[in-house]
Amino acid sequence: MEDKNYFVAISGSLRKGSFNTMTLKAAQSLAPPNIIIDHLPIAEVPLYNQDLYTEVFPEAVERLVDAIKAAKAVIFVSPEYNFSIPGVLKNAIDFISRSPKKPLNMKAVGIMGASPGALGTARAQYHLRQVIGCLNAYVMNKPEVMISQVSTKFDQAGNLTDEKTAGLIRTFLESLAIFSKKLG
Amino acid sequence: MEDKNYFVAISGSLRKGSFNTMTLKAAQSLAPPNIIIDHLPIAEVPLYNQDLYTEVFPEAVERLVDAIKAAKAVIFVSPEYNFSIPGVLKNAIDFISRSPKKPLNMKAVGIMGASPGALGTARAQYHLRQVIGCLNAYVMNKPEVMISQVSTKFDQAGNLTDEKTAGLIRTFLESLAIFSKKLG
Amino acid sequence: MEDKNYFVAISGSLRKGSFNTMTLKAAQSLAPPNIIIDHLPIAEVPLYNQDLYTEVFPEAVERLVDAIKAAKAVIFVSPEYNFSIPGVLKNAIDFISRSPKKPLNMKAVGIMGASPGALGTARAQYHLRQVIGCLNAYVMNKPEVMISQVSTKFDQAGNLTDEKTAGLIRTFLESLAIFSKKLG
Amino acid sequence: MEDKNYFVAISGSLRKGSFNTMTLKAAQSLAPPNIIIDHLPIAEVPLYNQDLYTEVFPEAVERLVDAIKAAKAVIFVSPEYNFSIPGVLKNAIDFISRSPKKPLNMKAVGIMGASPGALGTARAQYHLRQVIGCLNAYVMNKPEVMISQVSTKFDQAGNLTDEKTAGLIRTFLESLAIFSKKLG
Repeated sequence: MEDKNYFVAISGSLRKGSFNTMTLKAAQSLAPPNIIIDHLPIAEVPLYNQDLYTEVFPEAVERLVDAIKAAKAVIFVSPEYNFSIPGVLKNAIDFISRSPKKPLNMKAVGIMGASPGALGTARAQYHLRQVIGCLNAYVMNKPEVMISQVSTKFDQAGNLTDEKTAGLIRTFLESLAIFSKKLG
Repeated sequence: MEDKNYFVAISGSLRKGSFNTMTLKAAQSLAPPNIIIDHLPIAEVPLYNQDLYTEVFPEAVERLVDAIKAAKAVIFVSPEYNFSIPGVLKNAIDFISRSPKKPLNMKAVGIMGASPGALGTARAQYHLRQVIGCLNAYVMNKPEVMISQVSTKFDQAGNLTDEKTAGLIRTFLESLAIFSKKLG
Repeated sequence: MEDKNYFVAISGSLRKGSFNTMTLKAAQSLAPPNIIIDHLPIAEVPLYNQDLYTEVFPEAVERLVDAIKAAKAVIFVSPEYNFSIPGVLKNAIDFISRSPKKPLNMKAVGIMGASPGALGTARAQYHLRQVIGCLNAYVMNKPEVMISQVSTKFDQAGNLTDEKTAGLIRTFLESLAIFSKKLG
Repeated sequence: MEDKNYFVAISGSLRKGSFNTMTLKAAQSLAPPNIIIDHLPIAEVPLYNQDLYTEVFPEAVERLVDAIKAAKAVIFVSPEYNFSIPGVLKNAIDFISRSPKKPLNMKAVGIMGASPGALGTARAQYHLRQVIGCLNAYVMNKPEVMISQVSTKFDQAGNLTDEKTAGLIRTFLESLAIFSKKLG
């Protein structure tokens, strides 16, 4: 019997019509039967302030921590804001990183991103790789998923219509399952 | 009559006892008479969500935008979280960047940071430099202010006691005044 | 009478058919009458070894140093090798940086790059920006010239045929002339 | 019977009295009996030029390629030049990367560095991490070995005298042996 791979995924954008959240949902649909991807929301994670959250963490953060801890791999699907990681995503990671449960330690991580421009969030992804290394997780090297000109690749209903991108996401998911086994 | 230099400064930490906020206050005290530094708070800046803030920005953001627009230079004094810019600071910058007033355009920027470890926020500073370049502001190259082992450099009352660091901050402020004139 | 702007340009590739050297030559052709661009070769710069070159520098290096010192602005046109600056270009910069004449100090710098892929040397450019900052030169923020799918933009004779790229290079050169005046 | 771990190490400096080469030699001495570290020289690697080396590679490069291919892990011990990787080291990596044998693919990599200043080559190390990721090798996250104020940590004969640094290097080597098993 085949192993089930439980992955969790976080979108770096809070807006409803986000192309990155659409990309995350596309990955859920494209995943082979042995990979299940849970979408973890970060909208409820408050701004981190060490004065307020030394002992007790907000429930939204604890849920994130426990889900990441239980997962075989974590996927970040994020836009790029101002040549780097969106503040809202970085804030969620900062908060998670304070948990004594160290949920990201030795975890396999995959990064995807979509942008309206040509670079497909490349700058944000390399900053995020440095951040993830700090938490002693490992980001899979290849394939990189940098979706450029994203508005041409989804239809009005939010479905991914670009076959090349769909194939890339499938390869990404299968590679992440293999990579997470190596680290596990 | 000497020119007055109106600078604004933002701390990347929200906690009350922050060494970076102490460093910001030390800079205010150490500034020569022709440099005035206003401390701009970011604690009230909400998490950025394009669905909520397309037309009207929160008052806390508008105040930041207008103060930066009016300033000759902007100083960021920030801790490093997870090898990069704190999410709370990046979120504030992301929000400011959405303003049609483009307050950071062609602005002179200085970066300082203090950390308990050896690197003095170096990693966060180089990420921040990339972000500031995106907004078409220019970060002064030298001197770099990376305060390591910060807890040994302030007394219990929060006063900077390390003379070498004090001298560095004075040089930083005078250099920033010169640099801002070049760009202006 | 109009000011003449004397710029120098360095290609990060040594091979004869290099698209980046072609881009450099295209910039020479596209430059307005008040901008002259000298192409500085780096093929003769040996591998840097502090044991061999403490006092006397190779003539090829001294020529680079003096030409850069005399220029109003320096343009780097470079490929990306392995997600970063080509070793040959970095080696030339390392060598130049050892000169007591400090030719890059407070110099205006512009960066262009061309690649067969989608990112147009973005990763190399952000590393190069960090390096240039170390030497206390300032890299112009905008426009960024990242030429992707470069083989489709030149003809067999090595002439730039893509009008959009040509326009971008013209804007880049005019902006660099203005930027160099600010710093000067 | 215990496994033997065959590691190779490359110094990023060519000069004889290099503190980074001394650090490499210290690692050879400090290695436990089950770890053997071969020092691979890069002084003979010529400047990369695609016109000259398309089919046949210089022997110095082929020796590097084969030794890396045979090793369980690769250690880079490098100074920082101008806030980044030395050109001579980057050039050697660029050359190696052109080999169809892809010697670094899925290889475990460790990075160490020593500098006279406070940052201990941090900036060069993060650039090098990005480069290594391009070649589909994985850099061990922890421990990071960033040796600051290096001249105070070796004696005149080139022996490492700082016990804390010696302990860190021992931990680094043992961790790299474990990490290379995971990837292998």
